[in-house]
Parts: sequence; structure tokens; C-alpha cells
Amino acid sequence: MIKKPYLLFVGDVQDAIYAKTAAGVKYWRPEQAAGQFRFPGGVDLGLPDYDMKAAVDAGLKTILIGVAPQGGKLPQNWLDFLMEGLKAGLDIASGLHVRLAEVPELKAAAEKYNRRIFDVRFPTQSFNVGTGAPREGKRLLTVGTDCAVGKMYAALALEKEMQSRGLKATFRATGQTGILIAGSGVSVDAVVSDFISGATEYLSPANSPDHWDILEGQGSLYHPAYAGVSLGLLHGAQADAIVVCHQAGRENVKGIEGYALPTLKDCIALNLQMGGRTNPNITCIGININTSSLSEDAAMDYLKKTEDELGLPCADPVRTGVGPIVDKLIKDKI
Amino acid sequence: MIKKPYLLFVGDVQDAIYAKTAAGVKYWRPEQAAGQFRFPGGVDLGLPDYDMKAAVDAGLKTILIGVAPQGGKLPQNWLDFLMEGLKAGLDIASGLHVRLAEVPELKAAAEKYNRRIFDVRFPTQSFNVGTGAPREGKRLLTVGTDCAVGKMYAALALEKEMQSRGLKATFRATGQTGILIAGSGVSVDAVVSDFISGATEYLSPANSPDHWDILEGQGSLYHPAYAGVSLGLLHGAQADAIVVCHQAGRENVKGIEGYALPTLKDCIALNLQMGGRTNPNITCIGININTSSLSEDAAMDYLKKTEDELGLPCADPVRTGVGPIVDKLIKDKI
Repeated sequence: MIKKPYLLFVGDVQDAIYAKTAAGVKYWRPEQAAGQFRFPGGVDLGLPDYDMKAAVDAGLKTILIGVAPQGGKLPQNWLDFLMEGLKAGLDIASGLHVRLAEVPELKAAAEKYNRRIFDVRFPTQSFNVGTGAPREGKRLLTVGTDCAVGKMYAALALEKEMQSRGLKATFRATGQTGILIAGSGVSVDAVVSDFISGATEYLSPANSPDHWDILEGQGSLYHPAYAGVSLGLLHGAQADAIVVCHQAGRENVKGIEGYALPTLKDCIALNLQMGGRTNPNITCIGININTSSLSEDAAMDYLKKTEDELGLPCADPVRTGVGPIVDKLIKDKI
Repeated sequence: MIKKPYLLFVGDVQDAIYAKTAAGVKYWRPEQAAGQFRFPGGVDLGLPDYDMKAAVDAGLKTILIGVAPQGGKLPQNWLDFLMEGLKAGLDIASGLHVRLAEVPELKAAAEKYNRRIFDVRFPTQSFNVGTGAPREGKRLLTVGTDCAVGKMYAALALEKEMQSRGLKATFRATGQTGILIAGSGVSVDAVVSDFISGATEYLSPANSPDHWDILEGQGSLYHPAYAGVSLGLLHGAQADAIVVCHQAGRENVKGIEGYALPTLKDCIALNLQMGGRTNPNITCIGININTSSLSEDAAMDYLKKTEDELGLPCADPVRTGVGPIVDKLIKDKI
């Protein structure tokens, strides 16, 4: 468990769009985003600027790497900053491809000052294989027609909406950005494949009967590279409910030629068919569409048309909120 | 690639049933099983007995660990023997859970004598994510209603039968026993889950249009712990043909409560449905049944009844051979 609140590190990134992780933490966990650190010219997230010493004095606990270095390599000024942070008494949390805990200077400094470095992309615990055994509590999994269609965003929006209705709901992160937002989780696609379902069972353990775990999905059952991860996640989640996510206008698997996306109807049917293996009561309670590429009118048309066609609430978490999906969850007593 | 021929190490195992890996190598690759080493009282595989020096003199290249130590821990007499082998000039290949290459004494000896230790359970290469791109050559994948229903055995039997008909066929191993038999392969269930399909694409690369890769399947799409591995393998294989494997009499997922096995008909349908995503021409060419628990009459009845019901050749690789399945593959010009 990563200690909070965070000092969000945005480096010298000048455009908020490249500080997505930092912006995501600030948006979804504002109470944990207590400060920012940026080099001259770096983007302003609207948080207090701290240097290391001031951050510690203000009670901040962990430097959260909120941007990726250009070219993947760690620049010297990042390294200097991180060393200074460890020395001042801060931990580090990172979702980068490079393992910060194995950068010799950082490793030595963390040992010397007794600090922790969390490389959340790489699970450190070992998991058991899945048991398939039913467990108490309810689980909702966001699934998708493709990668990068808003599954994490949907899960966070559902958690927030459910909590605002007084329901017990906990977001369960399965990817690095989600883990940094939640402060814990399992990067499921980095788990050894024998343990995908087992890791998912670990991530969403038995809970009180009226508690919902809201699991962030990964990939898609239709994705030629990642479907195995998606299926392991679906089986391990033993989902009571799924919400299917899609981006308006996307017709093909992103970055892979020759693979048309399924229709939403087919995607729902296949997820229910496969998910039914570990939870025969699985049901689809709604559709989330990223309509950011559409005008307001076109977006509302799209949502209405999809809703009529499928007979399920259809929302855009940003444009409309996910209220109608939570309405259905409550009304249907799932 | 592991160097051959092998010296099969059977330790002090007294019953051939516990020397399954050694027996499998001898059965499927007799030309590579050039000798055996056993402690006093150890089972006789019917091969020449060698000590280390004699094995090297006879041209043997690699000690193949053909049994598992009781309790999982490496006994001292194994260690002494393996050190002596490395010193004499032999490599070591092992599918054990314990990594021999990381046992300090063995690691040091391998370095000193410039020998290699292959822990085939743990992939050492890194893989790319799957591309889903079509590739030349044909691929057959054995799939199953469950784990441990004869998928490896079926694949090896099909390779042998196809080669005996003059077809180009290569067994592709996806588990540790298969890798030791083939001398190469990828332990797919030990690959990081993001790369299951990519590792399968690597394992069965483009080949001449009339060449068949015969891939050993793993798990089952119906297995609550391992279905993700099975799906990644199915997608990555882009299988032109599947052979569905089952054990007569097994009704539930082995070792897991509450999961009935699918009917063969459903299992065929689901594998074709999911496999069709990366190869729309996928077809099922036969069924393999392990009928070892049945009498001869009951077995032949079972096979005949299944064949009539499904309209597909139905064989037991041991009892009847897989000839009818290869007949269909040829007749249907797949």
C-alpha cells in the first residue's frame, strides 16, 4: 500500500495531456493530490508547488511520477530530484517501464534513507492459481470492445456514483495508472499467465454481501494479443455485473491491422457467455461510450440509439455521467 | 536449443510411473535417449547405464532430469551427481520447479566448466506482444475439456502419424515435459500474461505452406484458473485445425469443485468460435479420448458412439492410433 498524500511530479511536461497519470490522480483522488513538483516551464495542475523539504514539512508522503520521460530514459535532473526526495523522507511510486527500484543510485539511496520505491507495473507478490470457488460480496467488471476505450475511467466513475448513492463500492485497479490512483492493485497483464485468475481473486477477495468491488478491465476478448488477460480477469472476477465500454467511431482494433471490432451486442453476449463459467448470474447492466470525438448532438443521438437498440442504459461518463447505469443496478437488485 | 542425445536421470525412483518425463522422452524420441543414470535400486528404462565419464565418452551431451525429487528439495546425492556431470562435460536440462541454474553450487560449476543449465519451466527470452498478422504454414492445436487429458500425447502422436505419411510436421512444445521431449519450446503458462499470444506466435513462426506445426495445448477454455492461457494460445496459434482431447469418465474439472466439464460438442463449438477470431478457417478434425480406464469393448463402444454423435474421427492415441484423424486432414485438404 502506497502512503499518501502524493507529491505529483510533472517534470518539464508543458501540456496537461502528457501528464495524464498526474491529472487522473488529481481528478479521481483530489484529497490525495496535495502538491506538485515541476521543473521551470512545467504544466501547472493547480496544486501548491513544493520542493522536497517543504513537501515533507507539509505532510506529503510519496512522490508520484505523473509523466513519462521522453524516449523512456531517466534524465539526470529527474534522478537528482528523486534522490533528493528519498533523502528528505519521501517514498516514490512509479508506473514507468524502467524499474526505479533497480536504478543503482535510487536503490542505494532508498536503502540508505530507509524509503520505499513502488514500481507498480511489476507485481512483487506471488499469487496462487485461481480456485474458481464462489465468494461473498458483489463484483462489477468493466470490459471493452478494444484496449483504451475507457474501462478504467468507467470503473472510477461507477465507484464515485455508487458511493454518492450510499452504496459500498471499491475501485480495484488492474493497470499501472489505476494502481497509482487507488494506491494499490495488481498490474494483471504483468502477472505470469498461470496466475491471471488467481491474481484477480486476490485483488477482489470475499467481502460483505452488500459490498461492490468495481474492477478495471483490461484488453478485450476480441483482442488478438491480449484476450487471454481479459478472459483470466473475467473468470477470476466472477463478475455479477459487467459494463461494456467502447469508443464512438472506432471500427478496428487499435494498432493492429485486419481486426474489425465486434458489435456491442456481440461483445455483451460473448462476455456473458464466458463470464458465466465462474458466475452463472452474470449480467450486463450498461454501456459506456467515449463520445469525445462527437458533437453534443451527435453524442446524444449515439447514446439514445445505442440504448434503444440494446435495451440497456448507455452513458458517457464525462458527458452524461453514469447515473442511469447505477439506477439499473439498484432497480434490478443485482 | 538443448544438445542431444540425453542421459536420462531417474535417480532412485523405483516405479516407472514416477519417471514419466524420462519414459516420455524414451518413447517419443528414442534416438535421443542414449543412456540412463540411476542410483542403486532405480528403475531400469532398458537403456545403457552410464556414469558421467562414460556418458561423455559415448557422445552424450545433456543430463535430462527425468524424475522429480520427493518433497521438491534437491537431495545431496543428486547435487553430487549433477556437479560431477557438469565437470565431466555434460549440460543439464530440467523441468523442475526449483531452478537448477540458481542453485549456488551448480551455478558455480556451470560457470567454471562452461556448461549450460536449462530450466525449461522458466522462459529466459523476452517476447513481443502478439501481432495477430496471418502467417504462412499450417498449424494444428490440441485443445481439451480439462487439464491433463492427453493434449501433449495427442500432439506427439499426430506428429508421428503425419510424418509417417510423408507430411511435414513439427511438434511444438508449450509445457516442460514437451520441451524436454522436443529439445526446445516455450513453457507458455510461465510467460507474462501480456505476451501469451506473442510467445505462441514466436513458437510457431511462418513456415512453408505445406508444413504443419503441431502445437501442444494447455488447460482448457472452461478451466476457471487457466482459461486465459488456453485462449492466448488459441489466438496466437491461429490454428487451421484443432483436435479436442478428453478423458473418458472425467465429469468435473480436476482438482476444482463445482465445475462440470463441457460436452465435447460444446467444447468444439467454443474453441472454433474463439479461434475463429485469428483464423476464420479454423476447423475441428477429430477427437482424442484417453480410454485407459475402460475395457477394450467399452473403449471401442465409447469411441464409436462419440464418432457417430459428432461426425468426426474419434481415436485413442494409445489404443487405436490417430490414423483416422490424419486421414481426415488429408482428405479434407485442410
